[in-house]
Amino acid sequence: MIHSLSLSDVLADHARSRPEVTAVVDGELRLTYPELDERVTRLAAALERLGVSAGDRVLWLGQNAYAVLELLLACSRLGAICCPANWRQSADELRFVLSDLTPAAVFWERSETTEQLREESWVQAGEEYERLIAEAPARDFPQVADTEPVLALYTAAFAGRPSAALLSNAALVAHATSLLVVRQMEPGFTFLNNGPLFHVGTMMFCLATLQIGGTNVFTPAFDPEEVCQLVDAERVTQAFLFGGMIDAVAKANAGGKYDLSSLRFVAHSAEWDDMITVDDSPWCRSRMGGYGQTEVGGMLTFLGLAEGGAGFAGRPSPLAQVRILAPDGGEVPVGETGEICARGKTLFSGYFARPDLNAEKTAYGWHHTGDLGRREPDGTITFIGPKLRMIKSGAENVYPAEVERALKSHPAVADAAVIGVPDPDWHQAVKAVVALKPGAEATADELVEHVRGVLAAYKRPRHVTFVDAVPKRGFTPDYDALDAAHGGGNYPGT
Amino acid sequence: MIHSLSLSDVLADHARSRPEVTAVVDGELRLTYPELDERVTRLAAALERLGVSAGDRVLWLGQNAYAVLELLLACSRLGAICCPANWRQSADELRFVLSDLTPAAVFWERSETTEQLREESWVQAGEEYERLIAEAPARDFPQVADTEPVLALYTAAFAGRPSAALLSNAALVAHATSLLVVRQMEPGFTFLNNGPLFHVGTMMFCLATLQIGGTNVFTPAFDPEEVCQLVDAERVTQAFLFGGMIDAVAKANAGGKYDLSSLRFVAHSAEWDDMITVDDSPWCRSRMGGYGQTEVGGMLTFLGLAEGGAGFAGRPSPLAQVRILAPDGGEVPVGETGEICARGKTLFSGYFARPDLNAEKTAYGWHHTGDLGRREPDGTITFIGPKLRMIKSGAENVYPAEVERALKSHPAVADAAVIGVPDPDWHQAVKAVVALKPGAEATADELVEHVRGVLAAYKRPRHVTFVDAVPKRGFTPDYDALDAAHGGGNYPGT
Repeated sequence: MIHSLSLSDVLADHARSRPEVTAVVDGELRLTYPELDERVTRLAAALERLGVSAGDRVLWLGQNAYAVLELLLACSRLGAICCPANWRQSADELRFVLSDLTPAAVFWERSETTEQLREESWVQAGEEYERLIAEAPARDFPQVADTEPVLALYTAAFAGRPSAALLSNAALVAHATSLLVVRQMEPGFTFLNNGPLFHVGTMMFCLATLQIGGTNVFTPAFDPEEVCQLVDAERVTQAFLFGGMIDAVAKANAGGKYDLSSLRFVAHSAEWDDMITVDDSPWCRSRMGGYGQTEVGGMLTFLGLAEGGAGFAGRPSPLAQVRILAPDGGEVPVGETGEICARGKTLFSGYFARPDLNAEKTAYGWHHTGDLGRREPDGTITFIGPKLRMIKSGAENVYPAEVERALKSHPAVADAAVIGVPDPDWHQAVKAVVALKPGAEATADELVEHVRGVLAAYKRPRHVTFVDAVPKRGFTPDYDALDAAHGGGNYPGT
Repeated sequence: MIHSLSLSDVLADHARSRPEVTAVVDGELRLTYPELDERVTRLAAALERLGVSAGDRVLWLGQNAYAVLELLLACSRLGAICCPANWRQSADELRFVLSDLTPAAVFWERSETTEQLREESWVQAGEEYERLIAEAPARDFPQVADTEPVLALYTAAFAGRPSAALLSNAALVAHATSLLVVRQMEPGFTFLNNGPLFHVGTMMFCLATLQIGGTNVFTPAFDPEEVCQLVDAERVTQAFLFGGMIDAVAKANAGGKYDLSSLRFVAHSAEWDDMITVDDSPWCRSRMGGYGQTEVGGMLTFLGLAEGGAGFAGRPSPLAQVRILAPDGGEVPVGETGEICARGKTLFSGYFARPDLNAEKTAYGWHHTGDLGRREPDGTITFIGPKLRMIKSGAENVYPAEVERALKSHPAVADAAVIGVPDPDWHQAVKAVVALKPGAEATADELVEHVRGVLAAYKRPRHVTFVDAVPKRGFTPDYDALDAAHGGGNYPGT
């Protein structure tokens, strides 16, 4: 296993190569890399005592804390899998996670829901957790292959219930390295973990900071004033901030009470740009982000690798390949819509205990993201929307997301959903269910003509129904309710 | 094989993601990524027609050229192994390579030695090579696992004969990515391949440039005036330059005949710094380089990751671990000397056809570099020197054992030892200490000519001293005594 490099190995090397560097800051707690390494070894031994073996799951039910990183690293050392779950979920949702993941150990923080669910064997964060570490021996662990999964993050609620995406040590190390490249991270990088660690968006920067031997600062949740305090006190390089969060931080620091100049981040507003150091890395230089999902380790494409490109999602990570594929596995021509598919070093190892879904997601040897995209003539990628449903009109595939996007670009449309209704000639016909903006007017013919202007003719709705509001399930249309109310049916595969 | 990413895959993605980017420039030849991709597919098909199968070796005997990169990528597509050999070697040395590597196909450029050795089946660079590509079909190839070796580089002639280090696709991609991190390479990076591609120092930047979708410019050998012309014409970002080479380029551009401002490189002299753009990446910022060897893919440690550090070799690559080990496999305490050992994503897959040596090099589950080092209290690494001796003449490694073997093959020589003496131009020069057989006669010039006849010119002794007997320590020359008596010094690491 000379080629293996797990998260545990990364930590073990930093303990030797960076003995004086602060690895973790959380409130009063400060740990150097050797201190973190020793605590992780003791924690791994403690997990073993709790009955956790290689391949077992360890669940964290709490807010952001240093313990999340320690548990993840201890699981890596042991060959186990750490799952930081969304602590804001309902008791029902958490019950599902517990029965789905069957964790060998659960660590919890006090909240209304955890109080309700807790069992005798659960370990409480704080004193009980610290006692566990203090009483465990520091002993050597054999090397664990980096192909083993180490992190589980719940996502992809396609069927109404989420699934746990498993990320291997190798995938996390590779993804972290891709961020080092695009964000041009260097030793000394200090990341403020103020976003939720059960989400890949925060976790990916936490792990990139670990990879380069930087400092991770933890705070339970986002508080603009506290962000200012921590940036000032810890000379933070980057925090988990975008849009309105940036405005809130800038507002909290109105008058320049705190020194935020250590932040090297994206330009946002004149006020903000004056407080921080506007960064020149590809990640920060123009538009931040790209296209990603938990199943690819975080980011699959980066805007910073495609400055001035036509596509709204940029170009692939240097450690991944992207193909736009048709349902038969063939490559779709440039400019046409297909499913965004991927291969590469950062990809996940499937969902925990979902063999059928996993087989479906890896059809033709490519990971199928479930999202639609398009390759632009300049090679950049445009993300169109989630595939979710497909309508079969004649021989053609029509993706509701694409038609909905077109409908919503009409100035009178507030919201729109598209379903397929049985059609004697075409098997299915496209039907649009549209909510207009208050006071706005548009006829069915006008909307059909509008769609015709931006999409191929076969994708245009043959029927349009106006409603006051499109029914939703979370952020997406409630297609089952729409089908029932508006005569949907005959979908391919049904 | 959703996690696999070979060099061939990297190229296939660029062909889609960067259709307009120039991948290769060589004289009049300019290839975009889609053009390179199609040529590589045809070349892979042509190699198959020549009888090359997965695992077979393909030998390049010539100077730097676009064909080296194309052959490497075609081998990746096919699962074969490309070996760009040192074309400056003697006929004897090349004969050894041919018998050791047993290549299934040989590509050659005209030279005194290749003329001597060529066989009917060999393909000549230029017209014959181009015809081969033109006549081959463009067909699809199945995916090749990135764990397969794809590059063979001869090195490590410690036992008197070199061995071919095998580097896998995964190791080369990982190493390229580590350079993207430390050198902060971005799309648009243009690398001038003016150093030899049979040497990892040039090859590693060629492949990092491929990885980020940049442009590789090829020139047969180093010519200061031509470097200036190419930098100006192609807006080159970096060339293979150090020490005296930089002075030579600055001198060739005295008066500012060429615009070298696209070069983003290390500061060197006031004159040089004015001509170029001094770069701020960790690779260029203070001291360039670190510690490396072919067997780790290039660099194992980087000075740029340890600014102000005590160790002379910096800190480990973000994709590798380093341990200083004792002969019994235990870790040596901080401050004490041991062997530099490594694990990680960039490591080689062993030497071709050297099972015993490979077992020895991977004792205790760590790659043993054969070099001595020390961990400093601040965690940085100091490179002390080869466990066995090595002389550094210019950028070339000269292994005493190899030159001694050549000297001893002369009928008048009873015994010989080779040391390195300080040299103002080449850092070190080779010095031979020779004991002749009783009654035998040979002049210094005769012996130098003899070595020249069997080894590459740069390995020949520049100085010869005759002694009655070579001092020994056991069976090997007593190098310390020889250095003391004959002015040895300036060894690498000292």
